[in-house]
Amino acid sequence: MADLAASESVGVWIFGARGSVALHAMVGARLAGREGFEDKLGGMVTNVGGLAQVDLVDLPNLVFGGHEIRPGGALDEANALAQGGTGLSPSLVATVADDLQAMDTDVRPGCAAGLGPWRDALEGAPVASADARAEVERMRGDIEDFRARHELRTVVALHLGSTEPPVDQRWYEETDLQQLLVSAGDELPPGVLFAAAAIQAGCPFVNFTPSAAMDLPALRNAAIDRALPYAGKDGKTGETLLKSVLAPMFLQRDLRVLSWQSYNMLGNRDGRVLDQPSNRDAKIAGKADLLRGVFDYDLHSGVRIDYVPSLDDWKTAWNLVHFEGFLGTRMTLQFTWQGCDSALAAPLVLDLVRLLHLAHRRKMVGAVAPLAAFFKSPYEGPPADFAQQMSALTNWVVG
Amino acid sequence: MADLAASESVGVWIFGARGSVALHAMVGARLAGREGFEDKLGGMVTNVGGLAQVDLVDLPNLVFGGHEIRPGGALDEANALAQGGTGLSPSLVATVADDLQAMDTDVRPGCAAGLGPWRDALEGAPVASADARAEVERMRGDIEDFRARHELRTVVALHLGSTEPPVDQRWYEETDLQQLLVSAGDELPPGVLFAAAAIQAGCPFVNFTPSAAMDLPALRNAAIDRALPYAGKDGKTGETLLKSVLAPMFLQRDLRVLSWQSYNMLGNRDGRVLDQPSNRDAKIAGKADLLRGVFDYDLHSGVRIDYVPSLDDWKTAWNLVHFEGFLGTRMTLQFTWQGCDSALAAPLVLDLVRLLHLAHRRKMVGAVAPLAAFFKSPYEGPPADFAQQMSALTNWVVG
Amino acid sequence: MADLAASESVGVWIFGARGSVALHAMVGARLAGREGFEDKLGGMVTNVGGLAQVDLVDLPNLVFGGHEIRPGGALDEANALAQGGTGLSPSLVATVADDLQAMDTDVRPGCAAGLGPWRDALEGAPVASADARAEVERMRGDIEDFRARHELRTVVALHLGSTEPPVDQRWYEETDLQQLLVSAGDELPPGVLFAAAAIQAGCPFVNFTPSAAMDLPALRNAAIDRALPYAGKDGKTGETLLKSVLAPMFLQRDLRVLSWQSYNMLGNRDGRVLDQPSNRDAKIAGKADLLRGVFDYDLHSGVRIDYVPSLDDWKTAWNLVHFEGFLGTRMTLQFTWQGCDSALAAPLVLDLVRLLHLAHRRKMVGAVAPLAAFFKSPYEGPPADFAQQMSALTNWVVG
Amino acid sequence: MADLAASESVGVWIFGARGSVALHAMVGARLAGREGFEDKLGGMVTNVGGLAQVDLVDLPNLVFGGHEIRPGGALDEANALAQGGTGLSPSLVATVADDLQAMDTDVRPGCAAGLGPWRDALEGAPVASADARAEVERMRGDIEDFRARHELRTVVALHLGSTEPPVDQRWYEETDLQQLLVSAGDELPPGVLFAAAAIQAGCPFVNFTPSAAMDLPALRNAAIDRALPYAGKDGKTGETLLKSVLAPMFLQRDLRVLSWQSYNMLGNRDGRVLDQPSNRDAKIAGKADLLRGVFDYDLHSGVRIDYVPSLDDWKTAWNLVHFEGFLGTRMTLQFTWQGCDSALAAPLVLDLVRLLHLAHRRKMVGAVAPLAAFFKSPYEGPPADFAQQMSALTNWVVG
Repeated sequence: MADLAASESVGVWIFGARGSVALHAMVGARLAGREGFEDKLGGMVTNVGGLAQVDLVDLPNLVFGGHEIRPGGALDEANALAQGGTGLSPSLVATVADDLQAMDTDVRPGCAAGLGPWRDALEGAPVASADARAEVERMRGDIEDFRARHELRTVVALHLGSTEPPVDQRWYEETDLQQLLVSAGDELPPGVLFAAAAIQAGCPFVNFTPSAAMDLPALRNAAIDRALPYAGKDGKTGETLLKSVLAPMFLQRDLRVLSWQSYNMLGNRDGRVLDQPSNRDAKIAGKADLLRGVFDYDLHSGVRIDYVPSLDDWKTAWNLVHFEGFLGTRMTLQFTWQGCDSALAAPLVLDLVRLLHLAHRRKMVGAVAPLAAFFKSPYEGPPADFAQQMSALTNWVVG
Repeated sequence: MADLAASESVGVWIFGARGSVALHAMVGARLAGREGFEDKLGGMVTNVGGLAQVDLVDLPNLVFGGHEIRPGGALDEANALAQGGTGLSPSLVATVADDLQAMDTDVRPGCAAGLGPWRDALEGAPVASADARAEVERMRGDIEDFRARHELRTVVALHLGSTEPPVDQRWYEETDLQQLLVSAGDELPPGVLFAAAAIQAGCPFVNFTPSAAMDLPALRNAAIDRALPYAGKDGKTGETLLKSVLAPMFLQRDLRVLSWQSYNMLGNRDGRVLDQPSNRDAKIAGKADLLRGVFDYDLHSGVRIDYVPSLDDWKTAWNLVHFEGFLGTRMTLQFTWQGCDSALAAPLVLDLVRLLHLAHRRKMVGAVAPLAAFFKSPYEGPPADFAQQMSALTNWVVG
Repeated sequence: MADLAASESVGVWIFGARGSVALHAMVGARLAGREGFEDKLGGMVTNVGGLAQVDLVDLPNLVFGGHEIRPGGALDEANALAQGGTGLSPSLVATVADDLQAMDTDVRPGCAAGLGPWRDALEGAPVASADARAEVERMRGDIEDFRARHELRTVVALHLGSTEPPVDQRWYEETDLQQLLVSAGDELPPGVLFAAAAIQAGCPFVNFTPSAAMDLPALRNAAIDRALPYAGKDGKTGETLLKSVLAPMFLQRDLRVLSWQSYNMLGNRDGRVLDQPSNRDAKIAGKADLLRGVFDYDLHSGVRIDYVPSLDDWKTAWNLVHFEGFLGTRMTLQFTWQGCDSALAAPLVLDLVRLLHLAHRRKMVGAVAPLAAFFKSPYEGPPADFAQQMSALTNWVVG
Repeated sequence: MADLAASESVGVWIFGARGSVALHAMVGARLAGREGFEDKLGGMVTNVGGLAQVDLVDLPNLVFGGHEIRPGGALDEANALAQGGTGLSPSLVATVADDLQAMDTDVRPGCAAGLGPWRDALEGAPVASADARAEVERMRGDIEDFRARHELRTVVALHLGSTEPPVDQRWYEETDLQQLLVSAGDELPPGVLFAAAAIQAGCPFVNFTPSAAMDLPALRNAAIDRALPYAGKDGKTGETLLKSVLAPMFLQRDLRVLSWQSYNMLGNRDGRVLDQPSNRDAKIAGKADLLRGVFDYDLHSGVRIDYVPSLDDWKTAWNLVHFEGFLGTRMTLQFTWQGCDSALAAPLVLDLVRLLHLAHRRKMVGAVAPLAAFFKSPYEGPPADFAQQMSALTNWVVG
């Protein structure tokens, strides 16, 4: 099996195929293997340590396609992003310009069903079809055509779209996918339809957003029925990553956290969508959960997210940790994280494709617990302690 | 053995017995077991998780003594410290005033041999004896009297004194302790004499400072000859702790650190001593080593320490981590740590007494590798990754 | 006139007489003139420069009284505050204990009329009287009794109470005070009743809170009718002070501010009240106005305030200024302010008493424009540039 | 006179003509007046307020020339800088490429006399001539040729080179320029020779560096003899600017500064030169002086500068201000400034050309006191309070 994985062509189907994360990932994958760009692929977990020794699909062998509601080709979008001060420079875009244009042939019109109250934030989005089931069928067909066209054995599908509002609690009662699509129909946010289409098309699935997608029993059952692995939710790229690194130290040193306040600012499309309170709440819940998963006592914590357009893709987060130590002494830690969201997320997307492909080859089914290290709110796996999560990941991959 | 450890009386001999760390530790130990003060003992590693389940000596059963070059009783010193804004408040000092006064009978005049060029920073220090061997003998006798007087089976000795200048390289050639004391004599800094006295008196020994003490083969050999365990060096309490928590994340996520700059300020007696360049260099070396122990590539790093009297015991450290991710994107993390040095160190001192007592009961000899998590520059043990170090510690204690 | 002001006894009537700001101010005033406490009165504008040369009432000659809705005496409240880590230490409280107890005789039950939706935040507050006019009369009587009892020529009254919800726009139409009290009655927040009582009692009045108090034409007219000076609103003590110092630099250097985000945390009673959205909005409006008063272009700005109980009186504010310079280069300034609210506000309260007394002696009537430097939202005066405001203040006092 | 200034051609002679500051300034000046680039000229003091109303030379009318020790043309250097993440993007460089190439004809080989111990930091620098007088003569001739060639009435000369070591105290005794050049000869750092050449050529002169240049009486006398105005020293662009904005607030509010610590990092050529202790000391002295100029009491302050190559032109400075207020309460302010050095300095260079041209037209001679706002260590003028300095500047220009 070992030789096969690296050299096999693997499909990558992205919901949100011309978003910033997707384009960063595609440009990186197309630079891989080219001479002179070896140092451009930092940020991938599968680059280092034991994980770098394992037989995983080679990046040049990834074949990209996807759905996208925005008009415009990949090259134009990439050139627009190249003004944003990330590593995606005009010269890197020029290097892979032909690849980007070629990919356009594998991108299909996206689904805007269920955009609901936040449609205003996505000007230009097409009007949703009223029929969720039809949309899922259409998307499934697109993925199957893609697989056939490129003669791929495996297509890993990923939700890289915008943050969505939560799903009504009663749909958590429904256990059958077809029934869910019929009954809930236009109440379902896009991520649920993406997951449904991917699973129906037989794709291992990654929910990189806070979408309710794989939280719903109907979708989990469908994945298990089809013997598919899945992973999520909500990529752990910046502030929450730091929390999962720092919080265990406070616990292990018995430095009692009194308050942990987080103030986040971002200015990209995701920030605009998060400016809608219902979307923001989903994101904040994920960020807040983490601390509860580490500490065995109640602590005061708060998470704020503000849309600050001038910051663009540069997510800036400030945290204050107020804690109490020996003899009741109160102390503080502050940090400021200035990270480029897309540049942090894109390499993890490539990691997840490689690792979900591995899980599929290993015939794993359902939530892949050892991938918890990648997510803010993992479906399963070790507690929210990054070191423990990385140890579990390494043991799984290497062991 | 299990029941015995908790209820056994264990001696704690502190070199620097009326320093701020020592007094914080003593006040905490004397509050332990008193009703209403249960929440004052935070910051101890042995309070939490698996370590809290193990049979370790109870804090009320610790018996304190030590050497001190400063005049003045423990109660006066504690009252002076109680103005410094740490948790050591006037009312806590009042609660244990009788205990503090009682301890004065077990404190003996310290040794100022080898103070060398930094004596100016310690005004009031007694003139050093010219004869290192005689000083060691005197201190050994003090410890043995203390053990006999209190009928103690074990006395754990700790160096909590000030930072010292380095020892000349040629004394690393000498392997016999008596010969070292005769030949190197007044070139040896106090920590070496402390360690020699402790070992000759049969005490497990902790070097909580950057002193060269147990780096010298002559001392290591002596400890092994006497079948004694030891641990060190330089307690990992603040900025360096954070580095050992954060650095592994950058490595595991393949976020290449370009520069890691550290700026430290402190205003206590230790700060005054560190204002002497030769002492500062020893401290800085320990802090810088840590990053080299984590990363397998060269990175630019710098550590600055400044004496800022108004900050007193409130060590403030600012760090900038400049790193590179996917497509060469450059990002930053900054943090500011405002910690009270004594309140962070004192609980670790109590932990180390309990754990070195355990090591001694388990007949361990030489450097106790599983204690690496407590130190900036551990003598032995897992690499400078705090999570790995804590895992090794727990496995050793519990396993 | 010169000798008279310093040596005259002047009354200080505080609405919120046992709050933290009031008690800090009272303790400071009672320490003034005592030997050994000369260095405890920092933070007063009238201590330094030209203002220190002018004949203003001496602090020992201030006579304190006020209204308070909380039960409990000043000494008990001060002792409780003395645990909070501000400069108000137990030993300072002990020094002026007799004075604090003596003041209790001049404190009268407060008015909780109009507490409205935020009463929950003030547990223990008495039920409001239904009759605003009667409450105003009662309070006016209390002040006049106080003036007579102490044979005072002038009593300066200050609103140091909690933040209040805004007043309905239609009450801005009413120009007659008696009519307002009759018509608006229980819709009026306490600050309006405080101002009404103070003015009716002939007191120069300071609104140190964001209360609508002197914004209402009915109150302004009443003050002018009685030939009284007044000042406000909302003391400029921390983050907003820094904004008014920094913003003019960005303007003068033509560094275009793209975004200015402010994140505030506080844990005292004021923080608890601000946890109520309607109260918070009033406070935020004041903070946001300032930038609009400096810059002549639109910039993105946001202010967040969170209640973080463990911080107590230590208001912590983090700001990000994202700005653009030459060739479109984008740069940032961040700051963290860790200030003790009461310790910053109390000296300004004493300054304002001295300066409003001066204004009254100088027969000034209405809003005192040169006092703009003290307030977030000054009623009148130079633009929100601290340097200009201080220059105007000095010119007025000295010139 | 009014119309003439704006439309007159004015020469700008830069010592360090292909350094980053010079190239940023030249690119900006060449973009001025072109349609679509109006928003690229931010950061200039003469853009805003009263100063924008005054008749000053128009930027398109500036004619650039200078001395440079580095080989390579302006276009190549600008393209290299355009990779550094400042606003100087490849597309802006392309826009003015012809202008940059044209300027090369007016750049002459620089003078490396007196580079002394820091020459290593400037690899590629030509060997110094042994004869300081001959070098001055040569540079004077170059400037005069430039003035004649372009038929310029005025040429303003600016020292934008690297930081230099201090000049021996005894040369402060010498009052005659020719005698100084003969006696001190190769002990003089380049800035002194630059100033000498500029003054001999009849140019108003700006020392934008910490060079001793115009500190020497011999040079001051020469400027006065030739009826020339001059300004300096050391541009106030970042951290020191903030200090001069913030420090007056602490003074005016009587918040006693206990400690003010500054930690600076930079990675450009200037940073490399500052890595040499003797050069660094000159820079640090200027930064530290400022606080002494504001406060009338002693405070603890420290300035550290570290060379951090990865930061390139992005100077990052962290400051801690520890201060004491009412009742002795101790509080802190921290700030982090992340500024692009060249983008902050270049617009001030253009301002200074315009304003020194104004001073010359107004027949001012010697140090121009109203320009203090531009410098860390002004030769003359109001104290180090930015608001007062800006007020003085405005009064002079407009008044």
